Amino acid sequence: MTSRPIEFVKGHGTGNDFILLPNVDAALTVSARQVAALCDRRRGLGADGVLVVARTEHEPEVAHLAGQAPYFMDYRNADGSVAEMCGNGARVFVAHLAETGLLTAGDGAIATRGGVRQFRVDPVGTAISVTMGAPALMDRDDLSVQADGSQQLPALGVHMPNPHAVAWVLDTREAGQLLEAPAVTPPGAFPDGVNVEFVRALGADHIEMRVFERGVGETLSCGTGACAAVVATEVRAGRAAVGQRVQVDLPGGRVTVLWRADGEVELSGPAVLVARGTVDADWWAEHA
Amino acid sequence: MTSRPIEFVKGHGTGNDFILLPNVDAALTVSARQVAALCDRRRGLGADGVLVVARTEHEPEVAHLAGQAPYFMDYRNADGSVAEMCGNGARVFVAHLAETGLLTAGDGAIATRGGVRQFRVDPVGTAISVTMGAPALMDRDDLSVQADGSQQLPALGVHMPNPHAVAWVLDTREAGQLLEAPAVTPPGAFPDGVNVEFVRALGADHIEMRVFERGVGETLSCGTGACAAVVATEVRAGRAAVGQRVQVDLPGGRVTVLWRADGEVELSGPAVLVARGTVDADWWAEHA
Repeated sequence: MTSRPIEFVKGHGTGNDFILLPNVDAALTVSARQVAALCDRRRGLGADGVLVVARTEHEPEVAHLAGQAPYFMDYRNADGSVAEMCGNGARVFVAHLAETGLLTAGDGAIATRGGVRQFRVDPVGTAISVTMGAPALMDRDDLSVQADGSQQLPALGVHMPNPHAVAWVLDTREAGQLLEAPAVTPPGAFPDGVNVEFVRALGADHIEMRVFERGVGETLSCGTGACAAVVATEVRAGRAAVGQRVQVDLPGGRVTVLWRADGEVELSGPAVLVARGTVDADWWAEHA
Repeated sequence: MTSRPIEFVKGHGTGNDFILLPNVDAALTVSARQVAALCDRRRGLGADGVLVVARTEHEPEVAHLAGQAPYFMDYRNADGSVAEMCGNGARVFVAHLAETGLLTAGDGAIATRGGVRQFRVDPVGTAISVTMGAPALMDRDDLSVQADGSQQLPALGVHMPNPHAVAWVLDTREAGQLLEAPAVTPPGAFPDGVNVEFVRALGADHIEMRVFERGVGETLSCGTGACAAVVATEVRAGRAAVGQRVQVDLPGGRVTVLWRADGEVELSGPAVLVARGTVDADWWAEHA
């Protein structure tokens, strides 16, 4: 329980939406139950996740990164569990830092549970770029995926570092309604489950895709999925990290992925801050 | 476009959620496109509908009711279209009036497109009661409904004034998953479509129910559906408007329905105000 108002900001990146809870003074404690209540789309405010905006030095689990990145994106899933990193969330987080004057420059770094990520705010447009780490390609050629009613399709496995299986189609409607998780073979290839991407190549620098996120279903947008799809498509075409910018059209909007020559993947896209305000203090206390 | 901040309040009644837009000074114009953008659950704030809080005297379509009810619940559906009345929304609307000091007493009246509705705020608990009008029973005994995979069930038709077909089950799971609209026969009985209720009677003053709302699907709660279900259940039991309070358990929570001896139906239940704040002015202008 807290006696000051509980401030929030609501925003989204290509339809992946978040509630930010500014907490740079570390006065707020946020329980898993409060996160789940906030993310409830009918009884709360509603979002895919919560991003607590903390000072890195205040949080024991990341305090050792404070010298590199002053702010910590404390990302929580909609069920209240903690998560490492979210590309779409990181852009919304950076947009909030920029808007509130917490940034002193157009680029910098933020701390996440997945480590330090670099960002860059496009000085002209509205895009924000965030580094997503280097991909790890699975060294096997026997992977395939099959959506309900579709053909069995050969796939490539990429860890971003979360697991992805990427398949190619001539029309993304081939994946059908995607109401259930596509079958991935051989069984056991992904012991922790896998996100599945269906990619239509539109050119050397342009793809369209749909994604089925493990444990969630089809989503409007998935940042690591966009990165995995571009990496796998480059590898399939016999290319690699050559610094080619690739435009990715997702159901929720357009992002750009750059697989840099140093192996790092950069994800760029829009971030929209929609509203801000305070959560009712009694409601917040009831959900502590 | 407007130069002052666009204030909002988010609340719900038994899981039926709304964005209120205070506009007692009539400074705000709210377009259908802005309503749809606000109600978008990922790119906006997200809600089942918008309730613009207006002074009755300011709105030509209801100004003649200003002497009876000083505030007008200007209800908009999530797609931006206008609507007459919503029982769960009316409670949230009244809770907001009470919280902001716009009420001078614990009871009174509000104007809606469906006419004037009386309300009463429970002085001890958190319940708010709203009059819903008098039901009109359909004079036919050949109605039946059938959910996917269920038995064909005899039903009663009630207009509240929107159309409802009420059927009884021994277990609400008999209605199955309710992913599609139940079939209602004879065809043509409800030319404008119909809401369908599946009711389990738990006693003379207690029912449990599920509802399939026309054009929407199964919902957590439907105020007129709860009223229709109680009226039909009373009629089926050979009773009528006798002033018996009936508790109604819906997936989203519990409401109480009173079919008064004067024929009017009263719906009582909780209203929760979750958060308040302002919508980003640029975002609002972009969606004008």
